[in-house]
Amino acid sequence: MPEHGRIPKYYAVKAQLSELLEELGTGGRLPAERDLATRFAVSRETVRQALRELLLEGRVRRQGRGTVVAGPKLEQPLALASYTEGVRRQGRRPGRALIGLDRFPCPAALAADVGVRQGEPVWHMERVLLADDERVGLESTYVAVARAPRLGQEFVPDSSFYGYLRERLGIAFGDADERLETVLATPREALLIGTSPALPMLLIHRVSRDAEGRPLERVRSLYRGDRFSFTTHLDGRKG
Amino acid sequence: MPEHGRIPKYYAVKAQLSELLEELGTGGRLPAERDLATRFAVSRETVRQALRELLLEGRVRRQGRGTVVAGPKLEQPLALASYTEGVRRQGRRPGRALIGLDRFPCPAALAADVGVRQGEPVWHMERVLLADDERVGLESTYVAVARAPRLGQEFVPDSSFYGYLRERLGIAFGDADERLETVLATPREALLIGTSPALPMLLIHRVSRDAEGRPLERVRSLYRGDRFSFTTHLDGRKG
Repeated sequence: MPEHGRIPKYYAVKAQLSELLEELGTGGRLPAERDLATRFAVSRETVRQALRELLLEGRVRRQGRGTVVAGPKLEQPLALASYTEGVRRQGRRPGRALIGLDRFPCPAALAADVGVRQGEPVWHMERVLLADDERVGLESTYVAVARAPRLGQEFVPDSSFYGYLRERLGIAFGDADERLETVLATPREALLIGTSPALPMLLIHRVSRDAEGRPLERVRSLYRGDRFSFTTHLDGRKG
Repeated sequence: MPEHGRIPKYYAVKAQLSELLEELGTGGRLPAERDLATRFAVSRETVRQALRELLLEGRVRRQGRGTVVAGPKLEQPLALASYTEGVRRQGRRPGRALIGLDRFPCPAALAADVGVRQGEPVWHMERVLLADDERVGLESTYVAVARAPRLGQEFVPDSSFYGYLRERLGIAFGDADERLETVLATPREALLIGTSPALPMLLIHRVSRDAEGRPLERVRSLYRGDRFSFTTHLDGRKG
């Protein structure tokens, strides 16, 4: 197995740009593409390819017609706490914008996770996740209508769903299983989040139960891969 | 915010291909590109774009000159258990191929995590992760030479490092902090793992301590995003 391959030209430019980003610091504005091409003695297309990767990785971001150095990724704990609480803990302002709330007959594949029989009504609530008004993710929640009958009238879409369950319905969370993977956004998802469809996303599937162990909800949360990382603490001394 | 955008042609083809993949089942061989282009009445370039996304997502894979339906992603628990144990639990055969094992003076940024002073010797061991002989990831481990003085002579690179620490050195794991994000492979990493550099990867940073709470190792594990997902169980009734 070869230890080193030939380093592509765009990647050498990317490495030099990385150093420049450190010098400029968060919020610093990059020189124009043509100036970078002159500085590194490469074509503008080569500069563009390097910038494209830095954009996908969330190390730079577009601002107006220019490009600036991005801040660090948000670190969201893998915990039962909601998105709202996780973002707030980092000094950012969480928000959610409602895309849609519908009720429909539960399909067979969803029934066990939300604790109803096939055909019984379930809510599907879809919201865009915001941090300081920036769109950073998309969340789909499925919950039995029997669990939250007045969701449509009572729930304030910009608030925490977990807060609503706890405070209005007295439902306490028990435990959840999560599965995390990286996916490409669909064109519809990319449009709703305002990203390029090529952007790698982090997708978390959650199935949760209440404190009595009864099925509660299934959630599909999609986060911008360039804006989020997830943290967890593993303790070998438990269990 | 618009609810639906115009659906790109390649994405409509991708949706039709998705149905075909379900019909064919894991291991089933897809028709040739030109036949797919005829069937869907689109250009070969459109078919190629749809296949490229399915490849990046790990839903199909190249086999010889053809393309076949891929199996489900490996589900690796986010747990203190090693890669070796996680893969074995899924009935796959784990393996590791040594890329390099060097010792070097510890840089300041690494010192606290491995529990030595700057300049004291640390090991850096880099291994390609294998599942049934397929290259699926790349792992870099940093550990103080003082902790494992005979690593270079004693350790069998294809075996479990955690097993070695436990069985040969009597070091028991205590706890670890992990951070998980999605990144693009560097050209060198892509070459070592045998993937395209455009493939989204899952990167896990781990810092762990032994059962007495002393710093043990820092690990950087890179997994193919098309082959892996990670699972965790969250329990709200603890802590």
